[in-house]
Amino acid sequence: MDKQVELSVTDMASDNIRILSAAMVEQAKSGHPGGAMGGADFVNVLFSEFLNFDPTDMKWANRDRFFLDPGHMSPMLYSILSLTGNYSMDDLKNFRQWGSVTPGHPEVDQARGVENTSGPLGQGHTMAVGAAITERFLVARFGEWMAHKTYTFISDGGIQEEIAQGAGRIAGTLGLSNLIMFYDSNNIQLSTKVEEVTCEDTAKKYEAWGWHVITIKGNDASAIRAALKAANEETERPTLIIGQTLMGKGAVDIDGCSFENMVSTHGQPLGAAGASLAKTIENLGGNAENPFQIFPEVEAYYKEVLAKKEAYAATKKAEQAEWAKANPELATKLEGFFKMEAPEIDYEAIAQKSGVATRVASATVLAELAKKVDNMIVSSADLSNSDKTDGFLNNTKALVKGDFSGAFLQAGVAELTMASICNGIALHGGVWAACATFFVFSDYMKPAVRLSALMQVPVKYIWSHDAFRVGEDGPTHQPIEQEAQIRLMEQIKNHSGEMSLLALRPADALETSVAWKMAMENTKTPTALILSRQNIKDLPSKGKRYEEALQAEKGAYIVEKPATTPDVVLLASGSEVSTLVAGAELIRAKGNLNIQIVSVISEGLFRQQSAEYQAEVLPAGIPTLGLTAGLPVTLQGLVGANGKSVGLDHFGYSAPANVLDEKFGFTAENIVKEIEALLA
Amino acid sequence: MDKQVELSVTDMASDNIRILSAAMVEQAKSGHPGGAMGGADFVNVLFSEFLNFDPTDMKWANRDRFFLDPGHMSPMLYSILSLTGNYSMDDLKNFRQWGSVTPGHPEVDQARGVENTSGPLGQGHTMAVGAAITERFLVARFGEWMAHKTYTFISDGGIQEEIAQGAGRIAGTLGLSNLIMFYDSNNIQLSTKVEEVTCEDTAKKYEAWGWHVITIKGNDASAIRAALKAANEETERPTLIIGQTLMGKGAVDIDGCSFENMVSTHGQPLGAAGASLAKTIENLGGNAENPFQIFPEVEAYYKEVLAKKEAYAATKKAEQAEWAKANPELATKLEGFFKMEAPEIDYEAIAQKSGVATRVASATVLAELAKKVDNMIVSSADLSNSDKTDGFLNNTKALVKGDFSGAFLQAGVAELTMASICNGIALHGGVWAACATFFVFSDYMKPAVRLSALMQVPVKYIWSHDAFRVGEDGPTHQPIEQEAQIRLMEQIKNHSGEMSLLALRPADALETSVAWKMAMENTKTPTALILSRQNIKDLPSKGKRYEEALQAEKGAYIVEKPATTPDVVLLASGSEVSTLVAGAELIRAKGNLNIQIVSVISEGLFRQQSAEYQAEVLPAGIPTLGLTAGLPVTLQGLVGANGKSVGLDHFGYSAPANVLDEKFGFTAENIVKEIEALLA
Repeated sequence: MDKQVELSVTDMASDNIRILSAAMVEQAKSGHPGGAMGGADFVNVLFSEFLNFDPTDMKWANRDRFFLDPGHMSPMLYSILSLTGNYSMDDLKNFRQWGSVTPGHPEVDQARGVENTSGPLGQGHTMAVGAAITERFLVARFGEWMAHKTYTFISDGGIQEEIAQGAGRIAGTLGLSNLIMFYDSNNIQLSTKVEEVTCEDTAKKYEAWGWHVITIKGNDASAIRAALKAANEETERPTLIIGQTLMGKGAVDIDGCSFENMVSTHGQPLGAAGASLAKTIENLGGNAENPFQIFPEVEAYYKEVLAKKEAYAATKKAEQAEWAKANPELATKLEGFFKMEAPEIDYEAIAQKSGVATRVASATVLAELAKKVDNMIVSSADLSNSDKTDGFLNNTKALVKGDFSGAFLQAGVAELTMASICNGIALHGGVWAACATFFVFSDYMKPAVRLSALMQVPVKYIWSHDAFRVGEDGPTHQPIEQEAQIRLMEQIKNHSGEMSLLALRPADALETSVAWKMAMENTKTPTALILSRQNIKDLPSKGKRYEEALQAEKGAYIVEKPATTPDVVLLASGSEVSTLVAGAELIRAKGNLNIQIVSVISEGLFRQQSAEYQAEVLPAGIPTLGLTAGLPVTLQGLVGANGKSVGLDHFGYSAPANVLDEKFGFTAENIVKEIEALLA
Repeated sequence: MDKQVELSVTDMASDNIRILSAAMVEQAKSGHPGGAMGGADFVNVLFSEFLNFDPTDMKWANRDRFFLDPGHMSPMLYSILSLTGNYSMDDLKNFRQWGSVTPGHPEVDQARGVENTSGPLGQGHTMAVGAAITERFLVARFGEWMAHKTYTFISDGGIQEEIAQGAGRIAGTLGLSNLIMFYDSNNIQLSTKVEEVTCEDTAKKYEAWGWHVITIKGNDASAIRAALKAANEETERPTLIIGQTLMGKGAVDIDGCSFENMVSTHGQPLGAAGASLAKTIENLGGNAENPFQIFPEVEAYYKEVLAKKEAYAATKKAEQAEWAKANPELATKLEGFFKMEAPEIDYEAIAQKSGVATRVASATVLAELAKKVDNMIVSSADLSNSDKTDGFLNNTKALVKGDFSGAFLQAGVAELTMASICNGIALHGGVWAACATFFVFSDYMKPAVRLSALMQVPVKYIWSHDAFRVGEDGPTHQPIEQEAQIRLMEQIKNHSGEMSLLALRPADALETSVAWKMAMENTKTPTALILSRQNIKDLPSKGKRYEEALQAEKGAYIVEKPATTPDVVLLASGSEVSTLVAGAELIRAKGNLNIQIVSVISEGLFRQQSAEYQAEVLPAGIPTLGLTAGLPVTLQGLVGANGKSVGLDHFGYSAPANVLDEKFGFTAENIVKEIEALLA
């Protein structure tokens, strides 16, 4: 095939993508055709000439990754993936329909080439940063033979999203030359032209972050090819290719006049926008009667393309086999990495000091994980010495440009970016991801936490400073509603029918060891660890406290059980359990009350236990008192209609933590009063 | 006073701030001394030589504003405000203590010169952008005579926060030359040196956003003075002054050796960090025995400063009086603006079409507000044609560089920035602020919503596309847990003891008019309006639907009341009320059931009503069925222990909305089944 023909079939393929994209949206009567038509040339050149993957083994670990940021451009993604054989024409016809594999916004489906769920702008390319970090992490341990690129595609909206600042800074600072981002710059966003909302010099901004920036005509295949070649040769910096594209490229109206560059084609079918689908299809060389076709020339071309990719992958796999033969131990290790099975750790053997804050107990476990789990990246948003992820950091080192032999990511003050990067690490595979900040700042991370839950990636969220006992820092730093908020995710089932997130608030040091065990063994969904700033007295134990704490694996368990039927059940999570224990001691000194004390590390998990177990822990008909440093509603479902949940129903105040305990009634004395009132 | 002496007293004052800051933190045994000591020179020069305010009237509408971004640098703010007479030495000694006026992070207290609550990094300077927009908005209507500057102070953390990208872009795009930001660049953040987490060329980044950037030695008073002068002369662009400062400037250890530029002085008392407070105080010319003193020379100097400011304010006020005499109508209008009383609107007279989506009904009200409320800015994050704030936009125009006669802010895709800007508009005063996006993206805005609630500013949040009926866009765009989440703020009391946020989800077009009435009349706290994407059948009415809908002002009301005691109560908010009505019609056709139907626009508001009213609406002991498109827990508190809340307990799916209604059971037929099951 000579150059002329090759160019020609390339442009035909791009037009084919445009036709399919426009037809899908028209058929679904909703969606976003304009952007997809403009971005077609880039994905076509990328997928046919650059992106390395194995068409027979889409989940090949060393494949190049492609992360889409603007999920509304899904027609473009499904169309290019139909050229590669991953979607059928029927799949495209069922775009946005119940039960189809082509939802309105792409949902992660690696077997079909969809690397990430997208839709909430900005997160897609940030996940790509996470994947690129993971690749460097693995290469640092196993060698450049397994190197691959991570490509990402971003739109005007993603460039504007606040998170782009975190992604841009971190990628530049780490010198991620393996990351190549195409910016589909068409000067049109949903409700206006881009110039109406920004005067930004985007090239300059990314240069300020140390990126290599190339600006091209984004609908010109040869320019795209040249830019991708230059990007692939870059060794020091991530590359941004700014492609000036035409929204709705190829669209015409009923008279055949151009309907390109129109805001109206951003978010509705061409027909609804005033263009003509039939004329557009004809203009692009297709058959208006049956737009869902791959041109024979394009089909033949992509057949060749796929054969080449398969051959390339086979070569790489053979290379890996050679390497494995020469490096059997490393090979076993690498294989283990990608199994993503919970690491075998003897959590009981981790020595915890008595009476420490659960963030400190967490640091003790993290130190062990740093030593034993070679495929784990822990990150903190500039709080490692306070959220105590320094337990991990002190046993490794930070990832820095040119040296990815460490395992700690200093994310800077960018909580949402950090969380989204962790999603990207998890999606890449081979490496566990955990990230930390203060619990009140989980507010910033919610959009990424939701995507973790939706995508079912086992990111570990470490949130310390879990209550008003932050103390002097005051109400801006004191979580109140955050536990109730994050536990809402325990009430949502993911697409596999499982609880979408596991939220754990351990009650003392050894329960923190158990919480980490639960987190590491939860390989299917995200886990939140909610940890105290202040020291907590160990819960009472009749034997081995660790073994007793292991019952937390049932979500809730009895810490103190009376000999006979309890007169009252006291329940809490986190440090409030020890306050209940102290209150129970006081009231027992006054009289003969049978008190059952329950630690509820996760209500969602507890509700999955047998009815018998639930009834044993929370016997029906017994007055029940809950204590929470959060909103009363946090425990409302557990104390039941006849119980009482004591919590906070107001913002916090700046004062020493022990003063706040007194003022807010979190004392043994007040527990006595509450029990007496409940039983009165 | 000659130049030499003036410079000298300036530096003395800066040292005085350093001493006070360090002493406050040491006394409180917690806090952040290092940054405060480094930033002292800037705030000293700013407050003494540039910032226009009236010491006798701190809330003077035309004062310059000063927004602190890094709230942890509160010792610096309280110290400079003690030089201006707003805090006593006792206030400083009580830093971070219960009941003090000097909480750990500043909480808005305009009478004392604290313009904003700060702590969550990045939001402070973004609020400043909002204030600067407000000033231009007012000047465009009343004249340059009332122009003032907005200053803001940001640290390394704020510069890194994702939101800084939105603030930087919008300020540059709007050409806010009235905005002057000092970046306290000390190369130290909480857990590392700044260079460990970023290679950013910050000057270049802000230049990319069209800012005027000046880099200076940030502890040099004359350099600060020159930069502030240049910034004040700038007429086209916002100015960023990058001040290279020394963390812990003046700090020494017990041997008198420098303890400057240490990460350890960021977040703990100097003593705890290893420096010597006593030696540091001596080094700075103070008395270690009694650090809480203002030097006599500084006191005298600030006395002069304050006299000058008072005189300047008096001149400006006289100028305003002259203007008012010449422009009596405008003067009355301006006075009205700053009263911040709910505008008088005849909401009943706003003609609503029947059966429309509540977002469309909202647009109808917004059109009226655009015509009648001259001091309101509405914003959208690139969704005005979808969240239907275009109802407002179509009756005004967008704010653009050089022309602030419009009243619509096209925020671009930057939800958190938009919300924070609205907080800043509200804090400035004189103008109402509203902002809009899809409900699912309220996740991005949570940190700013929390600050709205904490600061008690009446920002209106408009969230459309309120349920899975977003349809084809799929789970990333379908809110499930968001209503339960945002209603948690209804359960938190603010520092005035009021519900911290009012969340309204109206059930039909006319209830939407009422919801807007409630929002506009709620001048004390933020309000959320949660609106449907899809059309909703009007609720049945026996007389005037508007008058019936007015009962929503009680949070919940009876839409259909049976003649006798109900057999069952059905309750919902939003579009689910009409589904209940349809279900009730079906079941009535089958037999003689007494059904009471309740619309609950806000549970929080309903719970404030008399026990009698609550019992009338939700009679005790009657089986109650709730229907919500959100999590069942959203209505759990209303249906009670013996009722049932039917909702969604899983993520949504991509399909047409009516298909999802069928699949998820949101049909009249399913309501019949649920009622029958409840009564069985």
